[in-house]
Amino acid sequence: MKEVIAVVRMNKMNQTKKALTDAGIAAFFAHEAWGRGKGLVNAEVAAAAAAGNQEAAEILGSKGKLFAKRMVTVVVPDEKVSAVVDAIAAANKTGKPGDGKIFVLPLSDSIRVRTGETGACAIE
Amino acid sequence: MKEVIAVVRMNKMNQTKKALTDAGIAAFFAHEAWGRGKGLVNAEVAAAAAAGNQEAAEILGSKGKLFAKRMVTVVVPDEKVSAVVDAIAAANKTGKPGDGKIFVLPLSDSIRVRTGETGACAIE
Amino acid sequence: MKEVIAVVRMNKMNQTKKALTDAGIAAFFAHEAWGRGKGLVNAEVAAAAAAGNQEAAEILGSKGKLFAKRMVTVVVPDEKVSAVVDAIAAANKTGKPGDGKIFVLPLSDSIRVRTGETGACAIE
Repeated sequence: MKEVIAVVRMNKMNQTKKALTDAGIAAFFAHEAWGRGKGLVNAEVAAAAAAGNQEAAEILGSKGKLFAKRMVTVVVPDEKVSAVVDAIAAANKTGKPGDGKIFVLPLSDSIRVRTGETGACAIE
Repeated sequence: MKEVIAVVRMNKMNQTKKALTDAGIAAFFAHEAWGRGKGLVNAEVAAAAAAGNQEAAEILGSKGKLFAKRMVTVVVPDEKVSAVVDAIAAANKTGKPGDGKIFVLPLSDSIRVRTGETGACAIE
Repeated sequence: MKEVIAVVRMNKMNQTKKALTDAGIAAFFAHEAWGRGKGLVNAEVAAAAAAGNQEAAEILGSKGKLFAKRMVTVVVPDEKVSAVVDAIAAANKTGKPGDGKIFVLPLSDSIRVRTGETGACAIE
């Protein structure tokens, strides 16, 4: 089992939900987040700001703001990970910075509280 | 060490907090989330919607809504995982859909910022 | 690759952001959370409350409140984990309870949606 976490644009939530449903994934959860990607900070400006350059620090201050995002979490068996990743990526790819990232984390166990089922049965 | 993440009903937060305290777990954190479980989507309707059936898509639209939940995170040594899972499950089990899920993730390390302690000491 | 999750004080977010930028980490995300640390609950009171002592339960009720926190998530290659942990710890250490905790989780994969890059390339 794996936990797939995607950081996506707020206005892509409906398409992401639909893509997951179409991929046969009914269960997932989501929450608000704020994020910043590599492209939003100029490395030279960041280095100058780190070195004490006041002007660079101000530029960084304005460019270093965090953007509102949604974080979507899906737990699936190993064999469904690539389908889930592909579905989320297809729904979110615009080709512009800010399309988001997807992270895959190992999972030790899952428990469905209502039935007490564990492991793969709990996430079917 | 493991990270135990539980997705629970909003109105079960107090009982979940109490169950964790009773199980000797004082430290945890929580945040808002929205979720959807398997039972909330009819697989046939989802398949029809995916195939372009407008009526199915509308049914899905109304049934595919996300429910407000709370996500509770606890980090514990391996030997306390089952006690924590049992405590959370007992506090949240009503037998009805929506009782939530518990996920157990492996943890590489923990650090208590105040003291610099790492590993199991940081979560005692 | 590792996922580094830090639970920090709300008023330390700007310093945490700056510390990460100074450490060469441009990409991260954050969200609201509520938390409680070990020090905020008296173990004897908790035990008495668990044993049914009404007065203890009331004390616990008032002391068991959750504090507003921020959760910061950074995904980095293994060799940058200690630099990230040190940066976050330095920015958040006051020596008082509530300085927060940092957790390090193993990561199976990362995907940058815009380019389709995976693994370490996706988080550079």
